[in-house]
Amino acid sequence: VVRRTSKNLSTAKKVSIREVADRAKVHLSTASRALDEVQSKRISTEVVERVRKVARELEYQPNAIAAGLRTNKSKTIGMLVPDIANPIFPLVFRGVEDCSSRNGYTALLANSDFDLKNEKRILNTFLARQIDGLILATARLKDTVIETARQRGIPVVSVMRTTEQENVPEVVGDTFAGVKLLVDHLHALGHRNIAAIAGPQFTSAGPAQVKAFREAVKIVGIQLRPHAIVVADDFSIEAGQRSARVLLSNSVRPTAIVACNDLFALGCLDVFSEFGLKCPSDISLTGYNDTPFLDRNNPPLTTIRVPFYHIGYEAVNQLLLRMANPDGPASVTSFPVELVVRRSTAQVP
Amino acid sequence: VVRRTSKNLSTAKKVSIREVADRAKVHLSTASRALDEVQSKRISTEVVERVRKVARELEYQPNAIAAGLRTNKSKTIGMLVPDIANPIFPLVFRGVEDCSSRNGYTALLANSDFDLKNEKRILNTFLARQIDGLILATARLKDTVIETARQRGIPVVSVMRTTEQENVPEVVGDTFAGVKLLVDHLHALGHRNIAAIAGPQFTSAGPAQVKAFREAVKIVGIQLRPHAIVVADDFSIEAGQRSARVLLSNSVRPTAIVACNDLFALGCLDVFSEFGLKCPSDISLTGYNDTPFLDRNNPPLTTIRVPFYHIGYEAVNQLLLRMANPDGPASVTSFPVELVVRRSTAQVP
Repeated sequence: VVRRTSKNLSTAKKVSIREVADRAKVHLSTASRALDEVQSKRISTEVVERVRKVARELEYQPNAIAAGLRTNKSKTIGMLVPDIANPIFPLVFRGVEDCSSRNGYTALLANSDFDLKNEKRILNTFLARQIDGLILATARLKDTVIETARQRGIPVVSVMRTTEQENVPEVVGDTFAGVKLLVDHLHALGHRNIAAIAGPQFTSAGPAQVKAFREAVKIVGIQLRPHAIVVADDFSIEAGQRSARVLLSNSVRPTAIVACNDLFALGCLDVFSEFGLKCPSDISLTGYNDTPFLDRNNPPLTTIRVPFYHIGYEAVNQLLLRMANPDGPASVTSFPVELVVRRSTAQVP
Repeated sequence: VVRRTSKNLSTAKKVSIREVADRAKVHLSTASRALDEVQSKRISTEVVERVRKVARELEYQPNAIAAGLRTNKSKTIGMLVPDIANPIFPLVFRGVEDCSSRNGYTALLANSDFDLKNEKRILNTFLARQIDGLILATARLKDTVIETARQRGIPVVSVMRTTEQENVPEVVGDTFAGVKLLVDHLHALGHRNIAAIAGPQFTSAGPAQVKAFREAVKIVGIQLRPHAIVVADDFSIEAGQRSARVLLSNSVRPTAIVACNDLFALGCLDVFSEFGLKCPSDISLTGYNDTPFLDRNNPPLTTIRVPFYHIGYEAVNQLLLRMANPDGPASVTSFPVELVVRRSTAQVP
């Protein structure tokens, strides 16, 4: 039974192998073998020719998933980010893309919105598509997604975050160096009452920032004030606003705030206006990440530049190593960061 | 031949159906049938039980791609954007995601970097993964990617852009209304010498902006000056800089510029500084898109708010309709837009 001819194919559904088999009057499995370079050697030349002629006539396109199934390779790298609206993740993804395509892979991105249920759903989609490897910018300290991916034999690399899981390559920026650069900069401007807003503690970023700030302050010889560190409840401008309100309600107001994320810093600026404070003349403020467009913010943010593109690029290199040698060593690659002084920090009033 | 036991599976490769078949001492196809709800009815209960017991022991996970192959459904929607670093596309993608997941689909994103070769490579990846539908924010006026996708039977919806292809549903913002709101606003501020920067002409956006600007100016009764419209050579801040230099070199300088993209407007601001012009006291400027973070720009941009999230959400609705009825009518959905007046526009000097 031939259901359509080649003429009306252009906008029609794909021709199935079953239709090819029907028209060539062979069994489905014979048609499949006839179209496979290796398998076709096991059946008669006459049948192979007949099936291939029909396939050409019907413009049959071999099913690429079926091919992927045979070779178990899809040449696809999946990346999962927690918040695609934060412009730092597109920068990491650009690096992931470029290294992927240079190695013959295509990178696909999915966004979890910080939601573990979404992460699991997306992981299942990636597994169903048989991606070759996974880059996670979503890692929690104890990460069930990583565990599942590994059980299914999919290599994983963590970017921007470290985990407690052993044997997962990690590619990150140097948080301690970044926070220390900010504290040193503020100390040099005469600030002695410096506060900090750190990220949530369920990822590696938050605890690393708290630890780095404590150490950096100690090294320059400042006494850490009580309640000088606030932990934000998520990574957002609004969390920055909430944290700033807490800090500005301290009995002795800080003269400078190290916001360990540019989004927190934007939230701080909103709250400074509420409190009638001008930045930087009344209070200094730093961000962290050198988020695109915030060099044009009012005031332009003093911040830490993190080489996001290079982090993404290197993550794919690590992933390719992992794919070649699943039991090889898992390294932590920490990229140096850079202080960018703009106009949100000034001499202590 | 059993190659591994359940004990060492946790970090090992997947167990194949062949291993299940070998251990249960049945043919591969019998094992496959035994594990399928429908097919298992065609073989003896004793065999079904034996295969399933082995599968449990080996912790066999049915191959989701194989399942996808049988049903020809992957429950995945692919989206292709030209520039993931432009924050408007993550907004569209958030809408795509939410409508997808509400309908049981997962959305995956890829970025073409405005490059047709990349678009084709990504399309092939999407086809190989058997995505159920494709949302393109990359459509050119004559679009070969759309043509290929359609030939392969994949439903396509175009967002943000229209094409000359017939029968492709399109979900866009109302460009004419947006440009007219900006021209009316500037006219009301006394501006009579208004220039415009339009997008490149290979997408629908550029020509639509040129046409809208000509008509809007005519409606308010302004004589269009020679060289008052510059067409940018790509969608970037740098293209905005180049365009602004051309406009400011006109013998009679415009008193206001309608930049039909916020990125162009940022480029204009850079060039205003070079020319010693202050915005808005010396020259008024509008953007277009209400790009995230630019409400905090210095000066905050007067712009047009486009409901990107809703556009993405509706695109998935259109795609689902298309999937249910591939030959149904293809509509153009045009979303209303809104003027947002900030501090980059002022009374004519």
